[in-house]
Amino acid sequence: MRTISINDPDDARISGFRDIRERDLTGREGLFVAEGEVVVRVLASTASRCRPRALLLAEKRVAALSDVIAALAPSVPVYVAGQTVLDRIAGFPLHRGILALGEKPVAPPVEHLLAAVADEDVFVIASGIGNHDNMGGVFRNAAAFGARAVLLDETCCDPFYRKAIRVSVGAVLRTPFTVGGSAEDLVAAMQTAGVEVLALTPSATLRLADYRPKGPVALMVGSEGPGLPRAVIDRCRAVGVPMAGGFDSLNVAVTSALALHHVTSGRPAG
Amino acid sequence: MRTISINDPDDARISGFRDIRERDLTGREGLFVAEGEVVVRVLASTASRCRPRALLLAEKRVAALSDVIAALAPSVPVYVAGQTVLDRIAGFPLHRGILALGEKPVAPPVEHLLAAVADEDVFVIASGIGNHDNMGGVFRNAAAFGARAVLLDETCCDPFYRKAIRVSVGAVLRTPFTVGGSAEDLVAAMQTAGVEVLALTPSATLRLADYRPKGPVALMVGSEGPGLPRAVIDRCRAVGVPMAGGFDSLNVAVTSALALHHVTSGRPAG
Repeated sequence: MRTISINDPDDARISGFRDIRERDLTGREGLFVAEGEVVVRVLASTASRCRPRALLLAEKRVAALSDVIAALAPSVPVYVAGQTVLDRIAGFPLHRGILALGEKPVAPPVEHLLAAVADEDVFVIASGIGNHDNMGGVFRNAAAFGARAVLLDETCCDPFYRKAIRVSVGAVLRTPFTVGGSAEDLVAAMQTAGVEVLALTPSATLRLADYRPKGPVALMVGSEGPGLPRAVIDRCRAVGVPMAGGFDSLNVAVTSALALHHVTSGRPAG
Repeated sequence: MRTISINDPDDARISGFRDIRERDLTGREGLFVAEGEVVVRVLASTASRCRPRALLLAEKRVAALSDVIAALAPSVPVYVAGQTVLDRIAGFPLHRGILALGEKPVAPPVEHLLAAVADEDVFVIASGIGNHDNMGGVFRNAAAFGARAVLLDETCCDPFYRKAIRVSVGAVLRTPFTVGGSAEDLVAAMQTAGVEVLALTPSATLRLADYRPKGPVALMVGSEGPGLPRAVIDRCRAVGVPMAGGFDSLNVAVTSALALHHVTSGRPAG
């Protein structure tokens, strides 16, 4: 098998994998780090929108990924290191033993994602999501229910953060999405394309369970604390999920799943 | 205000708070650690099923909790320490600056939770949940949708683990639940009480969206990997949530929310 042994944690060839935790939130020049077998398999699959740049594996994990390695383009190096060297490269104990560097794809313009919208299409719009677990959860749910695309406003955190990718079970790597613009911009683009935008908010008088989609729908969720701004809600159809007495509110990723399930379950399976 | 200053991390009075991370999964003799303002407010509230035993606060957080402190029973000590001492007690940087020790309540017998079941009652049964985030999420959702109780089989992790309590937004401290017995035992107890048990499983032919409750319902979810055992599913009504092409499956806490929302949204608000 065509693997490259790494014995020195300071080897220049694996510098992209160095000190992952500290560098997780910084640029990496258009690259991201994916961790664990499930996610790296998605990255290497035909469903991926991202190109793998390199793999770094613990010796003991090479056999489990032999099919992935065999199918990779020959230009993608597969580095292999002992656990001790691997831990020193990553900067922490990397029990999973599987890392990949990938290239962030160029985000398509919103107009591209909204071309030829069909009646049964569902989109997700996220505004102000700052928590990487929640970001990953929103993507996992969007993929599970076959959302056509995810639109993130300019106040969202980066979905290519390692933990967000992991929580998404790789959905970040395969789901079409755009980043940027204000929540108002995204709502306006949707509405111009004939898509009804539902704002998920506890302040709504219409229950999610009583809403019936009549065409393409975008489901918009906001950050858990403040929620969606009133000015944004007022431009949309507001729907809510009533909570039992005295309880705060649902997790934002859970809310996205409730809305996706409700809107898609009345339609033919995708 | 009646607070007790702690200047020595080895002070015997705060030994229950020492080395939280390392001791998180061990016994603590019927006690648990709650962390953060939201959760400690639930613990100290009338909705709590658990008695607070002691508080340990960073000096800078005392003012924010003055109403909680004033309402606490005089027998509950409120220890206050500077951030450096607090970090040394906890064993890691405790940015939230708010800890409480609480007493685990005596779990009621299953029969007690199933006395006088009403038609609109909803229960949650969890089997084999080993991840504390998922455990916390299941409780958060159970509380959000007003589930009457949660039943955990003997293979579940401890919901009183610090992170599970935090993810539950305190729901672990206020929701009636029992721990123990096999999944089969819990299903049998439910059915004896006239409760229909739904097994949430991707293998089901009946879609969750097409199910209509006709009386009290228990929603059973299993661990994310293997899911519910076939022998358990066969004793229940199996329902599933169809996934979009090629996607794995939903998070177990998300699945519980989908089922809770579907089953409760056809009923009068609680």
